[in-house]
Amino acid sequence: MSAAPLLLTMGDAAGIGPEILVRAFASGEAANAVVVGDVPVMRRAAGVVGGGCLVVPVDCLDRLDRLPHGAVPVLQAKDLPADLCEVPFGHVDARAGAAAAACIREAVQWVRAGVGRAIVTAPIHKEALSAAGVPYPGHTEMLQALSVDPGQPLPPVRMMLANDELRTVLVTIHMSLRRAIDAVTFEGVLKTIRIADASMRRFGLGRPRVAVAGLNPHAGEGGLFGDEELRLIGPAVEAARAEGIEVTGPFAPDTVFMRARHAADHPGEFDVVVAMTHDHGLIPVKYLGVEQGVNVTLGLPFVRTSPDHGTAFDLAGTGRADPSSLVAAVRMARVLAG
Amino acid sequence: MSAAPLLLTMGDAAGIGPEILVRAFASGEAANAVVVGDVPVMRRAAGVVGGGCLVVPVDCLDRLDRLPHGAVPVLQAKDLPADLCEVPFGHVDARAGAAAAACIREAVQWVRAGVGRAIVTAPIHKEALSAAGVPYPGHTEMLQALSVDPGQPLPPVRMMLANDELRTVLVTIHMSLRRAIDAVTFEGVLKTIRIADASMRRFGLGRPRVAVAGLNPHAGEGGLFGDEELRLIGPAVEAARAEGIEVTGPFAPDTVFMRARHAADHPGEFDVVVAMTHDHGLIPVKYLGVEQGVNVTLGLPFVRTSPDHGTAFDLAGTGRADPSSLVAAVRMARVLAG
Repeated sequence: MSAAPLLLTMGDAAGIGPEILVRAFASGEAANAVVVGDVPVMRRAAGVVGGGCLVVPVDCLDRLDRLPHGAVPVLQAKDLPADLCEVPFGHVDARAGAAAAACIREAVQWVRAGVGRAIVTAPIHKEALSAAGVPYPGHTEMLQALSVDPGQPLPPVRMMLANDELRTVLVTIHMSLRRAIDAVTFEGVLKTIRIADASMRRFGLGRPRVAVAGLNPHAGEGGLFGDEELRLIGPAVEAARAEGIEVTGPFAPDTVFMRARHAADHPGEFDVVVAMTHDHGLIPVKYLGVEQGVNVTLGLPFVRTSPDHGTAFDLAGTGRADPSSLVAAVRMARVLAG
Repeated sequence: MSAAPLLLTMGDAAGIGPEILVRAFASGEAANAVVVGDVPVMRRAAGVVGGGCLVVPVDCLDRLDRLPHGAVPVLQAKDLPADLCEVPFGHVDARAGAAAAACIREAVQWVRAGVGRAIVTAPIHKEALSAAGVPYPGHTEMLQALSVDPGQPLPPVRMMLANDELRTVLVTIHMSLRRAIDAVTFEGVLKTIRIADASMRRFGLGRPRVAVAGLNPHAGEGGLFGDEELRLIGPAVEAARAEGIEVTGPFAPDTVFMRARHAADHPGEFDVVVAMTHDHGLIPVKYLGVEQGVNVTLGLPFVRTSPDHGTAFDLAGTGRADPSSLVAAVRMARVLAG
């Protein structure tokens, strides 16, 4: 008896999502997984990739091991635009946005029903979502809303970027740096530490060592270069420690990621680093090559990972897009879902 | 006939400066270089390091090749506190601060007189400088003031952090992140691009490819996450390009450093990255290991490098401090001074 499969959402039909999914299956890197998407779009992607990949419609998730090696099983999402596979590559298209949202909605239903084990999302395009009138700006907000019943409070979530060497969880993400500074609050930092700790435990890390990066150069140098460390971040670290979390900091941003980096010749001092801003956290994770980075949404009632890149409209339809980050996301989803 | 020697300032006598200098010479990594410092302090450091290193007072800079291999030539700085080698390790001491400043002053005189080829500075302690009444908060400001005659305008300088893979030049450095955002101006960015370009040319890079990182996540995503890229940074890049500089950007901070990273299997797309904040620039340079990072002051009329760490008071006097970054600074000074 095999575990429930991973659900891979198709992403935007005009982007590289469908073709990197085909390449992931063709290389054998996506065993016991199924695409939640559109069969004709996936067939078009298989044509683009070449090599005679077989796209197989499936309507039952527990017979995946009977498929030929390298085949791409697709669970046809319901209520998609009929002409979806005529969406041109590389352009914002409301039909592609609507379909991407429908696939995500359906995948969440399956995973909440226990039929799917975790969700890996291929890239969507924010403008296409918006053109389709989807009321969420992106994956995270949509997954957050769909993960609870209507009227229930949304679970607090955080974005984690991770590769084999480093995991970083972000207090603030998609806003200007000026607004991000204002959004660094005692509550926000404390919640992020709690989510990071709880998620690492859930992922099997025992008693995770959480490090917190400061906001300012040298973590404020004792108040000389900003006081957020003294007023907000330090007290949040103290409060989390009082709750029994093994957390230290705030550390100087320029060295804490290096200290946490885990490589064969360099055992990391920490299991996860909480970063105050998008770029403090993402610069080190991406530095060694974006294809290794995986985005994990922490705080949802299920595991969700995604590749660390967008729809790459300039590459879509060429068959040249690199599936490495998607493959890494699939691997990480498998590990985290246990 | 050998080229003029490198001048290595001793740094704070209570810190690791003297002992890492001894270790650099002992390992043969500091040929044709001389310490500008205090002979008794350097002898104490040689004792700490062990291995019978010879500290040799020199008063003439063109006979260094006659010294035994591994010896530490020291040009005795004038007017130092008499009891300097009684300064305890690991503590802020006004005597050490005064002596550190005197060594820097003397090294600048030698290099301005053409007798020294470049300056490599061992770490000083800002509080010790301040306790000694030195009117500069750190190396950079002091070197800037000493590099011109009294009354002359100070040259605009910028801090570059570099290792074998990445060079990054900073628009803002030691101030709170909030102040740094305000300090990102059209003029400041343009000046930094000019200094980066001119310095790379002077260092023999022909027509350097300068990349400019944005300030906000995704470089502002077209104004959605902040407008500094549209109002200030983009126009500064345009202005610099109009002057004939090969500069591009602003790019998303989270991927531009990765793109510029130059390794055997990964040729970098850019020769230098201009970063808006201290930590955007320093996180990637330090990520692979702080001991490889070298600090270079751009804009001075001479080459100045320094290791990318401080006095490490907790290690001073143990002989265990790692000289790698100092050695890298010596090597880079030699390369840059041509």
